[in-house]
Amino acid sequence: MFLFDNWYVAALSSEVSGGAPLARMICGKPVVLFRTPDNRVAALEDRCMHRGMPLSAGKLCAEGRALQCPYHGLEFDASGACINAPGQATIPRAMRVLTYPVHEQADLVWLWPGDPALADPADIPALGHGDDPQWQMFGEAYFEFKAPWGMILDNLMDLSHIAYVHVAAINGDPEAHYNARMGVSTDEDAKCVHVKRALPNCNPPPQYTAGYAFKGRIDRWQEFEGSASGVNAWSGGTDAGTGAFEGSREGGVQLRHFTGLTPATEGSCHYFFHGVRNFALGDEQVAAKLKAGLVATLREDQHILEAQYARLLETGSRPLVSLAADVGGLQMRRLINRLLDAEAARRPAAQAIPVASANIDAMLALGLAKQ
Amino acid sequence: MFLFDNWYVAALSSEVSGGAPLARMICGKPVVLFRTPDNRVAALEDRCMHRGMPLSAGKLCAEGRALQCPYHGLEFDASGACINAPGQATIPRAMRVLTYPVHEQADLVWLWPGDPALADPADIPALGHGDDPQWQMFGEAYFEFKAPWGMILDNLMDLSHIAYVHVAAINGDPEAHYNARMGVSTDEDAKCVHVKRALPNCNPPPQYTAGYAFKGRIDRWQEFEGSASGVNAWSGGTDAGTGAFEGSREGGVQLRHFTGLTPATEGSCHYFFHGVRNFALGDEQVAAKLKAGLVATLREDQHILEAQYARLLETGSRPLVSLAADVGGLQMRRLINRLLDAEAARRPAAQAIPVASANIDAMLALGLAKQ
Amino acid sequence: MFLFDNWYVAALSSEVSGGAPLARMICGKPVVLFRTPDNRVAALEDRCMHRGMPLSAGKLCAEGRALQCPYHGLEFDASGACINAPGQATIPRAMRVLTYPVHEQADLVWLWPGDPALADPADIPALGHGDDPQWQMFGEAYFEFKAPWGMILDNLMDLSHIAYVHVAAINGDPEAHYNARMGVSTDEDAKCVHVKRALPNCNPPPQYTAGYAFKGRIDRWQEFEGSASGVNAWSGGTDAGTGAFEGSREGGVQLRHFTGLTPATEGSCHYFFHGVRNFALGDEQVAAKLKAGLVATLREDQHILEAQYARLLETGSRPLVSLAADVGGLQMRRLINRLLDAEAARRPAAQAIPVASANIDAMLALGLAKQ
Repeated sequence: MFLFDNWYVAALSSEVSGGAPLARMICGKPVVLFRTPDNRVAALEDRCMHRGMPLSAGKLCAEGRALQCPYHGLEFDASGACINAPGQATIPRAMRVLTYPVHEQADLVWLWPGDPALADPADIPALGHGDDPQWQMFGEAYFEFKAPWGMILDNLMDLSHIAYVHVAAINGDPEAHYNARMGVSTDEDAKCVHVKRALPNCNPPPQYTAGYAFKGRIDRWQEFEGSASGVNAWSGGTDAGTGAFEGSREGGVQLRHFTGLTPATEGSCHYFFHGVRNFALGDEQVAAKLKAGLVATLREDQHILEAQYARLLETGSRPLVSLAADVGGLQMRRLINRLLDAEAARRPAAQAIPVASANIDAMLALGLAKQ
Repeated sequence: MFLFDNWYVAALSSEVSGGAPLARMICGKPVVLFRTPDNRVAALEDRCMHRGMPLSAGKLCAEGRALQCPYHGLEFDASGACINAPGQATIPRAMRVLTYPVHEQADLVWLWPGDPALADPADIPALGHGDDPQWQMFGEAYFEFKAPWGMILDNLMDLSHIAYVHVAAINGDPEAHYNARMGVSTDEDAKCVHVKRALPNCNPPPQYTAGYAFKGRIDRWQEFEGSASGVNAWSGGTDAGTGAFEGSREGGVQLRHFTGLTPATEGSCHYFFHGVRNFALGDEQVAAKLKAGLVATLREDQHILEAQYARLLETGSRPLVSLAADVGGLQMRRLINRLLDAEAARRPAAQAIPVASANIDAMLALGLAKQ
Repeated sequence: MFLFDNWYVAALSSEVSGGAPLARMICGKPVVLFRTPDNRVAALEDRCMHRGMPLSAGKLCAEGRALQCPYHGLEFDASGACINAPGQATIPRAMRVLTYPVHEQADLVWLWPGDPALADPADIPALGHGDDPQWQMFGEAYFEFKAPWGMILDNLMDLSHIAYVHVAAINGDPEAHYNARMGVSTDEDAKCVHVKRALPNCNPPPQYTAGYAFKGRIDRWQEFEGSASGVNAWSGGTDAGTGAFEGSREGGVQLRHFTGLTPATEGSCHYFFHGVRNFALGDEQVAAKLKAGLVATLREDQHILEAQYARLLETGSRPLVSLAADVGGLQMRRLINRLLDAEAARRPAAQAIPVASANIDAMLALGLAKQ
């Protein structure tokens, strides 16, 4: 079951350049992205209306304003219109491909796969650091996980897994993760779920000491703001005892990252990472270390999630049981269910529900009623 | 949906020799071919009636008159009869495998997967050059395309793709392909569709200059005769201005080739190529160049068709729109539909219709009513 | 269709050691095995009750008494109980995984995937050599065949395939296998089918001469006792003319082996081999030769069975015809059908019948009524 009426990250801005089209499956729909001469990103259905060939296998044409199908040479511009059908003067009116609303913001290309009339760029989640130049990017990355969107949201809303899955870059102190204090809340307008974790007086992880010298133990925090588009996170630590949780959180190590989660198919999901720091500014060696640590961390998640998904597919009829730490994931699931219900109310017959992921969604939601 | 009552190429003659059986899936039916001592080709169901083992994994026995199952040693002769069941004197009457009518002609082994009572070798399409010794083979080839039969027929009936797909050996002049004059007709007895293309005053392609010296530009033609068995093609060129289209077409470069198209499964197709030339006779270097150019050309088609098929499978609910150049493909589809209807009328319950390819067939046929 | 109320080999004892858990799919159920400090083998559902993660991807904990989930650290002991849910003091009562009855005997770990109340270790088939120290192990092996359980039972109950499939280690005399005298019977309590083959005055196979010097030709026998758990076999040979069949069978070469057959999924099966000899005692070189010969032999079977299964899946609607040599396989199938019927009578709605293997089972059983 896909939530179509939503902004998703379709690509890192750096992926859409160099004059080549980019193919990406989004919510089960094949999309091709390309950048036009006015520096805008166009998003077309990646399927020529003539014979179904993927347009992403073709090349830019018409001075970069259109894509040429590699089979019979038909050309489609950013509006989806066919502007050239080789060998005939009149182009059939039906010869056009679908387009999708896109909006580029903060180094990310956002796409709305649902009803275009509802697409408002103002609804795109702002990244936590805004335009503040005191935050510098340390890395961005793209992965495709062979696990469904809902399972990855579930993963990011329950950080208790850090103690077990992430043994290297971001752990630092398993005991502290085990004993972290957690607070969970959903926004009044039901657009975000907030999961906050406090890890007082703990050992800093390698990710924090790569570019900063603490005196010793630190007070550490993680604030994750989840939405249907992904997760906006703010994490960091300051020397222990300086009041990091309640105070201004100045100094120390602070990281803000956004994780864009975009359903590819029922059983696979795009995972976009974009992270900034407020320390070691200008130090590219530190940035590289942070990025390497982050990529290793996400590979640890990928390994877990793909094994979990395969097992859930094999054992669909067996139940699951939730724990206290799942409250963030369960609130997120309630939020998603409300959005899906609203979309279904707007377009009752818009889609079939893929059985496998709907079943897994239902299993992960067990215990919802009890919260 | 397979058309069973039809002659298909099952193999190049050169593939059925050397004493080893050849396995080939034809219209969803596993077939094993072997050559008997009287130099005939036998075609059996490739499945031992005893326990289902592929006979093609076994070996020839009984002085080459039979195939021995590699599991329990049962032997089946060219009539499908079991002539030896090791360990028992009496062979059950039901212990026999299906056979298929085969006919070898012009270096090709033809097979009829449908009702044997209807199989008449006189219906096998004659190759264009007949027995004329002035035509010499330059190459034969076998491929398996992961795309359905109907899509490959569609490809060969619309040659406007040459301008875009075939950039090397057979192109020569994209502009000329773009502007080619085309004529399409279906035979009165509805057995063949003829697509004729004229490319006057164009640059010759590498395939033509490999073994012939033109004065400069040429008048070029392509005449494709499609049937349910494949495509008989006649293409060539003479020095521009000598009246190649209306005249005798003597001299210059002339190629005749036959493309046998045989459904393997619903989503894959055997592609047999057999080509002759009337120039550079006896020159094996020229023949080798022509064959290399042809193989590269067919790989270009394969690349396109497999990507197209995968995309059509993913987007089955979206329509397609035809162009003027599709008229040959659409007439061919009408011809095939008539043959399928006739077969269904003879054997109403003979087969289920595989959903995926029927759907793609329907999409490719869009616009049929409007022609 | 799985027979759940049955003892199956889950692992060689040697596979469950070293402190690492072992994952194994049994009758479609994911199982994880591990050895506890009291040297017992525990068998748990290989799926954390919290979020479905395979526990086999985790590690032993609680001094080896429990398994720790690699995702959120939950710990499950041999009883299936969760003994630690990190981050919370109270563990939900539903947070436990299934367990399976296990029993270790004669270097094999046995598991009962069905109703635990019916699991009686006394029903585990005794290995032919009992505890007799005059029999020494020459090898054990584990394979996974991509072919269903029923087809492998069928293979082992009809040894006439030795003449064709097994050309090397265990053949020795194709003619003798071709002419072997066979006797088949089913036990009164319908727990075993016995297939006995006599090969008088034949050439010994390499497997027999690897560690024993015969005078020349031998009298050879094979006695296979098949049950739903696998096959207990006794084979051997003595110098020809000494009355091996009716007499004491002393001296010569004697091998006893047990083949454990355990359904993994509908279309795959675990194949466990455990073999002992009563000759060349203490000679490890001979043992290694025997094991190598056996492994090569089983690979020959695997090759055949996987090709047979693939073909049967493709041609499910075509019948099969049985021969006289199939009487052992057919009696075995009757035995299995009785056990399946009895299980279905005890638990009418316990399981769905997978279509593909049920169809193949039905085809292999053709001719049952005629026996």
